[in-house]
Amino acid sequence: MSKPVDNAVSTVRTYIQNHRTAFLDDLAEWLRIPSVSAQPDHAADVARSADWLAAKLRETGFPTTEVWPTAGAPAVFAEWPSEDPEAPTVLVYGHHDVQPAAREDGWDTEPFEPVIRGNRLYARGAADDKGQVFFHTLGVRAHLAATGRTAPAVHLKLLIEGEEESGSPHFRDLVEAKAQRLAADAVIVSDTGMWSEDTPTVCTGMRGLAECEIELYGPDQDIHSGSFGGAVPNPATVAARLVAALHDEHARVAVPGFYEGITALTDQERELFAELPFDEERWLRTAKSTATHGEAGHTTLERIWARPTAEVNGIGGGYQGPGSKTIIPSSAMVKLSFRLVAGQDPEHIEKAVRAWAAEQVPAGIRYEITFGAATRPCLTPLDHPALQSVVRAMGRAFEQPIRFTREGGSGPAADLQEVLGAPVLFLGISVPSDGWHAPNEKVELDLLMKGVETTAHLWGDLAESWREAH
Amino acid sequence: MSKPVDNAVSTVRTYIQNHRTAFLDDLAEWLRIPSVSAQPDHAADVARSADWLAAKLRETGFPTTEVWPTAGAPAVFAEWPSEDPEAPTVLVYGHHDVQPAAREDGWDTEPFEPVIRGNRLYARGAADDKGQVFFHTLGVRAHLAATGRTAPAVHLKLLIEGEEESGSPHFRDLVEAKAQRLAADAVIVSDTGMWSEDTPTVCTGMRGLAECEIELYGPDQDIHSGSFGGAVPNPATVAARLVAALHDEHARVAVPGFYEGITALTDQERELFAELPFDEERWLRTAKSTATHGEAGHTTLERIWARPTAEVNGIGGGYQGPGSKTIIPSSAMVKLSFRLVAGQDPEHIEKAVRAWAAEQVPAGIRYEITFGAATRPCLTPLDHPALQSVVRAMGRAFEQPIRFTREGGSGPAADLQEVLGAPVLFLGISVPSDGWHAPNEKVELDLLMKGVETTAHLWGDLAESWREAH
Repeated sequence: MSKPVDNAVSTVRTYIQNHRTAFLDDLAEWLRIPSVSAQPDHAADVARSADWLAAKLRETGFPTTEVWPTAGAPAVFAEWPSEDPEAPTVLVYGHHDVQPAAREDGWDTEPFEPVIRGNRLYARGAADDKGQVFFHTLGVRAHLAATGRTAPAVHLKLLIEGEEESGSPHFRDLVEAKAQRLAADAVIVSDTGMWSEDTPTVCTGMRGLAECEIELYGPDQDIHSGSFGGAVPNPATVAARLVAALHDEHARVAVPGFYEGITALTDQERELFAELPFDEERWLRTAKSTATHGEAGHTTLERIWARPTAEVNGIGGGYQGPGSKTIIPSSAMVKLSFRLVAGQDPEHIEKAVRAWAAEQVPAGIRYEITFGAATRPCLTPLDHPALQSVVRAMGRAFEQPIRFTREGGSGPAADLQEVLGAPVLFLGISVPSDGWHAPNEKVELDLLMKGVETTAHLWGDLAESWREAH
Repeated sequence: MSKPVDNAVSTVRTYIQNHRTAFLDDLAEWLRIPSVSAQPDHAADVARSADWLAAKLRETGFPTTEVWPTAGAPAVFAEWPSEDPEAPTVLVYGHHDVQPAAREDGWDTEPFEPVIRGNRLYARGAADDKGQVFFHTLGVRAHLAATGRTAPAVHLKLLIEGEEESGSPHFRDLVEAKAQRLAADAVIVSDTGMWSEDTPTVCTGMRGLAECEIELYGPDQDIHSGSFGGAVPNPATVAARLVAALHDEHARVAVPGFYEGITALTDQERELFAELPFDEERWLRTAKSTATHGEAGHTTLERIWARPTAEVNGIGGGYQGPGSKTIIPSSAMVKLSFRLVAGQDPEHIEKAVRAWAAEQVPAGIRYEITFGAATRPCLTPLDHPALQSVVRAMGRAFEQPIRFTREGGSGPAADLQEVLGAPVLFLGISVPSDGWHAPNEKVELDLLMKGVETTAHLWGDLAESWREAH
């Protein structure tokens, strides 16, 4: 290792250490804003979150910060041009909205009252995604401090959307409308995770997502299960039979046409997955589960990273209160989501699911099926030079070899790739135990600071490798 | 028709007409008490309902009225001995508790604010069962007025329980403990219905009921369906698969052993059913449904009266709010009920369902199955002399031929039959459109008054036929 590298690492670390307290205070202030995009009564909070972030980015030094309205929740755009007009342009993507959360869901503390316990910061959004957006603010300042620059080595843009947890329904429109302002040579997505605290990794792909809700209507009102039971169709039974019919006996998705177009995993990809230090017992602990279950013929990592799924996220119908109520309920509903992999197209999946549902619902039951916004799957080529820059920057921060993973979750990265024609790279420091979408979501403070450190090194490395290539 | 009958009918009618307003005012007062036995926060209301009824029966003339506590909700007992020590003893059974009801379930008016619109009285309990209990009060007074008696022609007892809508969990114990006080030569159950407004009928049997709730537990908390989806079992999927596995492709219950011991319908019974003026379109309207669906090889009447069922009354798991939440839920639950017919034994059904559930639930899902109190099925012999008395009394009130039906619902009548060794007869005036257990429950006022009139004739007829037989 050459001296200049060591010096840079140490300068960056000192700078970060000196600004850590203020950084965490600011993040906590942001986390207190309950920017839940899925719940209409939080619309004002999502708007407040955007304004807060725009102001903070201005304070950080971005000369341009704008709140971009959409037909839904607003996004935040910021831009900080390099002094070198030949420098590459990098667009950072993240989101400032969060999943719903309520104390009674099982949180030990208020989800929107951030609290540090041990070396962890607990709050809804701590890891998904406010913490991982926020490390870019201190990161770019550390980059400037360590290099003596007054502007980043790359033309730096940020696009932080406000509807990711609602399936980014207006993101594609926004990106298309603002394509010129967003134009970039590479996209850095900071909305993913690493393998574990001990094994830093770079993610190379995300699954896509299609979601639908099916409402089923039987009798015009709840009717007596003694007087009528056994002679009319029960919408809760039909809801259950729909969910049961989603999978065959091998836990494969049984919707006809669902697997059409998928590129099968190569032997090399399966080997790469198999080489990771996967400990099923440990993984099950992070999954809060006691047994694995999934598509026959695939390992757990293949199932969560490279195979599509059908999952019921919610089901409801009839009497759910205390005691019993002997009724045939008048309605029932299911909320389904489908994770998609490279080769699958949300429009095709919607068509397939609609056709399948039409086959399943019997006479006497009326149904309505509604699809939300979909997210395409995406994959980054392993040999892309910008990916190598990310690996080097992480290596300096973590002082460990960086390995490769994929992400089972979904993000609108594929829209950016498609509309902007730029490769998508992933830089995330969250770990599976962070509890995304769950009670007691947290971020590991050590990893959060490694995220800051990585971005402090990344912009210089990217600018240099770009110069070499052009 | 002989003169004396006409006179009696006319005297009874005049008496009832003169007391109709006060009778309906009293009933409305009782209906205002929300005696919902399934909801613990209504326990005080159920107790208040019992006290109210006991006081009203005392006012009616019953020399003995008692509120009988149970381990759950209290029952009301009343006794009015005949002046003839040789007279038979008749026990009337009904219940003073009601199903849960809330305005937002779809009621046009407050469920516990009785209102008369047209010739109908709307309120929770109007038909099931307060209205049908209450016609016995004016009925016995009309009987005395028309016959010049100061006590009924039979030794009259009433047992009005407070837990019928919760599956009568303490009824059997109560009947066993009070068997001597309850001793009777016949039981009259007033908790059933008639064929229709135009076709008065006597019911000859009721289905039994076994109920259970199955709670299913997967991950210790809701987990992200992207990070973990496709690789761990989802308890909502398992709940749905349980419900789907309840029936085979012929809509027969698929729980092994479920049909064991059932006496098949005779050709004569099937013919009796087939002779009734069954209009499927009309029946579907009362069922608020648009198509029939049920066990292959059986008619709708056979399905609801003489065939056992498995029904899901409630299902729930995961996110049921607005928008979407991409989780694998941590738990799910189903509430199931099984209607039983003669030959089926609730204890055997519980055993069969437990064994079936154990087979269905996969590794990684923990479950708990809880059975509520069960109700046995029962059937009355068609040739019983007391049944003939009921038919004659109804005939005088309705001035129409009385036909025979069965009841798909369930009541603890079988316990009375078993413990007291007395035949069980059914006297009910409710019609299918009354909306038992549903929003906008009502009772037809004309039929309610026919119920009063029937009981005014019944006690004399029963006493006479008893004398002839003994």
